[in-house]
Amino acid sequence: MNVTDFLLQVAIILFTTKLFGIFMRKLGLPQVLGFIVAGILIGPSIWELFFDLSGASVFPLKQNDFLNGFAEVGVIFVMFAAGLETNLQDVKKTGGTAFLVAAAGVLLPLVCGTGLGALFLPHAEHGFFTWLFIGVIMTATSVGITVEVLRELGKLQTRVGTVILSAAIIDDVLGIMILSIVLSLSGAKSADYTVLSLINPSGNPAITVIWILAFFVFAISAGIGISKLFKIIEKKSPHTRRIPIFSIATCFLFAYIAEKVFGVADITGAYIAGLVLSTNHNSAQYVDRKVSINSYTVFAPVFFSCIGIKMSFAGFSVETLLFAVTFTVVAILTKIIGCGGAARLLKFTRKDSFRTGMGMIARGEVALIVMEKGISGNIIDDKYRVIVVLLVLVSSLLAPILLKLLYRHDDTPALPTRQELEEGHFD
Amino acid sequence: MNVTDFLLQVAIILFTTKLFGIFMRKLGLPQVLGFIVAGILIGPSIWELFFDLSGASVFPLKQNDFLNGFAEVGVIFVMFAAGLETNLQDVKKTGGTAFLVAAAGVLLPLVCGTGLGALFLPHAEHGFFTWLFIGVIMTATSVGITVEVLRELGKLQTRVGTVILSAAIIDDVLGIMILSIVLSLSGAKSADYTVLSLINPSGNPAITVIWILAFFVFAISAGIGISKLFKIIEKKSPHTRRIPIFSIATCFLFAYIAEKVFGVADITGAYIAGLVLSTNHNSAQYVDRKVSINSYTVFAPVFFSCIGIKMSFAGFSVETLLFAVTFTVVAILTKIIGCGGAARLLKFTRKDSFRTGMGMIARGEVALIVMEKGISGNIIDDKYRVIVVLLVLVSSLLAPILLKLLYRHDDTPALPTRQELEEGHFD
Repeated sequence: MNVTDFLLQVAIILFTTKLFGIFMRKLGLPQVLGFIVAGILIGPSIWELFFDLSGASVFPLKQNDFLNGFAEVGVIFVMFAAGLETNLQDVKKTGGTAFLVAAAGVLLPLVCGTGLGALFLPHAEHGFFTWLFIGVIMTATSVGITVEVLRELGKLQTRVGTVILSAAIIDDVLGIMILSIVLSLSGAKSADYTVLSLINPSGNPAITVIWILAFFVFAISAGIGISKLFKIIEKKSPHTRRIPIFSIATCFLFAYIAEKVFGVADITGAYIAGLVLSTNHNSAQYVDRKVSINSYTVFAPVFFSCIGIKMSFAGFSVETLLFAVTFTVVAILTKIIGCGGAARLLKFTRKDSFRTGMGMIARGEVALIVMEKGISGNIIDDKYRVIVVLLVLVSSLLAPILLKLLYRHDDTPALPTRQELEEGHFD
Repeated sequence: MNVTDFLLQVAIILFTTKLFGIFMRKLGLPQVLGFIVAGILIGPSIWELFFDLSGASVFPLKQNDFLNGFAEVGVIFVMFAAGLETNLQDVKKTGGTAFLVAAAGVLLPLVCGTGLGALFLPHAEHGFFTWLFIGVIMTATSVGITVEVLRELGKLQTRVGTVILSAAIIDDVLGIMILSIVLSLSGAKSADYTVLSLINPSGNPAITVIWILAFFVFAISAGIGISKLFKIIEKKSPHTRRIPIFSIATCFLFAYIAEKVFGVADITGAYIAGLVLSTNHNSAQYVDRKVSINSYTVFAPVFFSCIGIKMSFAGFSVETLLFAVTFTVVAILTKIIGCGGAARLLKFTRKDSFRTGMGMIARGEVALIVMEKGISGNIIDDKYRVIVVLLVLVSSLLAPILLKLLYRHDDTPALPTRQELEEGHFD
C-alpha cells in the first residue's frame, strides 16, 4: 500500500458513503448509518466470507496507517464540532429541570447496562470496568433526529423540546466524564506512556479521579485564557484564517494533553476545547463552519466508514446477537423510564413525561465513538462493535415514529420560535 | 509514534506555519515560504546538528506514514484548487499573444535549465532526464504576487496584466505536461506497478508519449461527462454537500488513474480534474471554497511544512550552494528574456515587454511541488531541494520590487476594471 493507493481508497469512501448517506436520509434515518453500511460493503467483512483476501492491498479496504490517521483526526473534528455547537446559554435557561432529566437518563442506563454486562460478559478481562463500560455506551443521547422531528411538528420551542435539547447536551458531558473515569481506572491504557502512570504507578483510584478532575480544571482555565487571546486577535483582524487554524491547533493540543498527560480520552479533550471556545460568540460559529466543512467533506466519512471497515462477521454468534438485541432494548427502555420518570417527578403531565423520555432514546455518533475508544483501549472485544450499530439503527428508526404518534392528537399551540418572534409573525 | 502523537504534531505544524506565514506576509513575501521555514525549525535538520535524535519520536517532527498521508492529500488539494480557480474564458480572450509569451517562457528556461543540469550534475543517475527535469522545475510561474502588485498599482486590467495572467496559466499546463513526459520517459517510477509498464515493458518512448496523450484524452472526455452529470445533480438539489464531496472523490480518482494506469504524475490528474470541473460555472466556485478551506486549515500547512521537515543540511556543500545560486539566476533571467522577448516580437513597447517578462519571474507552489515529485520519483537527489526554495524566496522578493520600479513614472491611465465598469465609475 502506498500513498497513491490511499487516494483511491479515499475516493471509494467518499463516493460510497455519500450515496448510502443520501439513501438513509431518504428513509428518514441518520446519514451516519449509511456511512457504516458503506464501510461494511467496501471493507473485508463480507468479501472475506467468499474470497481469500490475503493478496488484496487496495480493495477491499483494510485498516492502515493512512486511514487510521484520517479516522483519528475525523473523530477529533466530530467531537470538536459537537462542543462548538453547544449553546451553554440554552442549557442555563432550562437549568435544574434539564439537569435532573439528564442525570436520571444517565444513571439508569449506566446501572442497568452494568448489570447487562455482568450477565453477558462474566469473564471479561477488565471485569467490573468492562461491565461499567457497557453502561457508559448507553448514556449519550443523539438529539439530531429528535430535533428535526420536533421542528417539523412545531414543538421544538415547547417546554418538552427545550428540556430534551438541554438534557441531551448535559448527558453528553456526563457520559464523557464517566467514560474518562472508567477508561482511566480500568488501566486499559496503561501500556501507553502517560504522566498519570508515572505519578500513580500502583493505580490508586483516588489519585486517578483527582488527576481527572485536575484535567477539567486545567482545560477550562487554559481554555478561557486561550479564548480571551482569540478575542484580542479577532478584534485586531476579524474573520481571518488564523482564528480557525489556531482553534483547530488548540483542539488537537487539548486532545493530546488529555490523553498523554492526564490519561483522559483524547475525544474528551477535543470536546472540552469545543465547549470552551463555544463561549466566544464572535468566532464560534465562524470556526465551526470551517471545522464542519473539513469534517463532512473528508474526515467524518473516513471515520464512520472505518467502523464498518473494521466490522467482522467471523466472531459472530447467536450469543452476540442475543446480547445486541437485549442491549438495544435495555438502552431504549432505560432512557424512557429514566428521563420520563424524572420529568414526571418534576410535575410534567403524564403525556409530556412520556414524550420527554421518548425524545431521549436516539443514540448516534457519540455512542459509536465511545465504543471505538473502548475497543482501541482493549476494554471490550471488537466483535461487540455490532451492538452499538444495532442500537443506533433501531433507536433512530423508533424515535421519529413514536414521537410523531405521541404528538398526533396534540392541538395545544406551540410557543413561537425565536425566528418567528424576530420576524414578527406573531404580532 | 501513535495516532495521538500525530495530533500533537499537527497542532505544532498549524501553530508554527500560521505564525511564520503571517510574518512572511508582513514582509510582503508569500505565506508558503513561512510554512517551509516553520518546517525547517520543527523538523530535524537544525536539531540534528546539535543533538542525537535517535530516541526522539514526536519532536522534532520526522517523516511518518500519518504525515505522508496528509501531505499527499494536501498536494492533491492544492493542485485541484489551482485547476478549479483557472478561468479558461480569460485565457481564450488573450489567446494567441499569451500563448506565445508562455511558450517562450517555458522553452527558454527548459533549454537553459537542461544545460545547467548537465553542467552541475554530469553523473546523475537518470542522465539527460535529470538535466531536463532541472529545466522543468523552472517552467511554472506563480502569478499570485504579481497579481497583487498589479492590482495595487491599478494595472491588472492593462494589456500587460491580462497577458501575464493568461500566460501564467498556460505555462502551468505546459509545465505539467512536460513534467509528465519527463517523469514517464525517465522510467524513474517503473518500480511502481503501472499499466504503462505492462503494455510497454521495454520503455519505448513513442508508446509512452502516446499513452500520456491517451491520458489527456481520457481525462478531458471523462471529465466532461462527469461535469455534465454534476450539472444534473446540481439542478435537482442545488448547493448540497454532495457536489463538493463527489468533486473531491473525482479528483482523487483522477489522481490515482493518472499515476497508476497512465504513468502520469498524480498531481497532473488532480490539476486536470480541477480544470475540467472549473468549466462548470454553477458549482466550480462553490466546490473551490470547500476545497480551499480543507486546504488552508489543515492540508496545505502539513504539505508545505513537510518540505522543510524533509530538508537536510547534512549533504550541504559549497557546490550545492553555487548550483542553487546559478539555478536561481538562470531561472529568473530566462523568464525575463523569454517572455519579454516574445512580447517585444508581438509589438509590445520596450517598457511593456520588460514589464511582462518581470511579471513572470515569480515561482511558488508549483515549482515546489514539481521538485517533490522528482525527489519521490528518484529522478533527483533530495539534497537539491534547497535550490527551489532559494528560487521561490529570491524571485518572490524581486518580483514586487522590480515591478513597482518599472511602473514608477507611468501615468498612462489603466483600463477600467470589470468591477469599475459594472459600477459605472467611468460613465
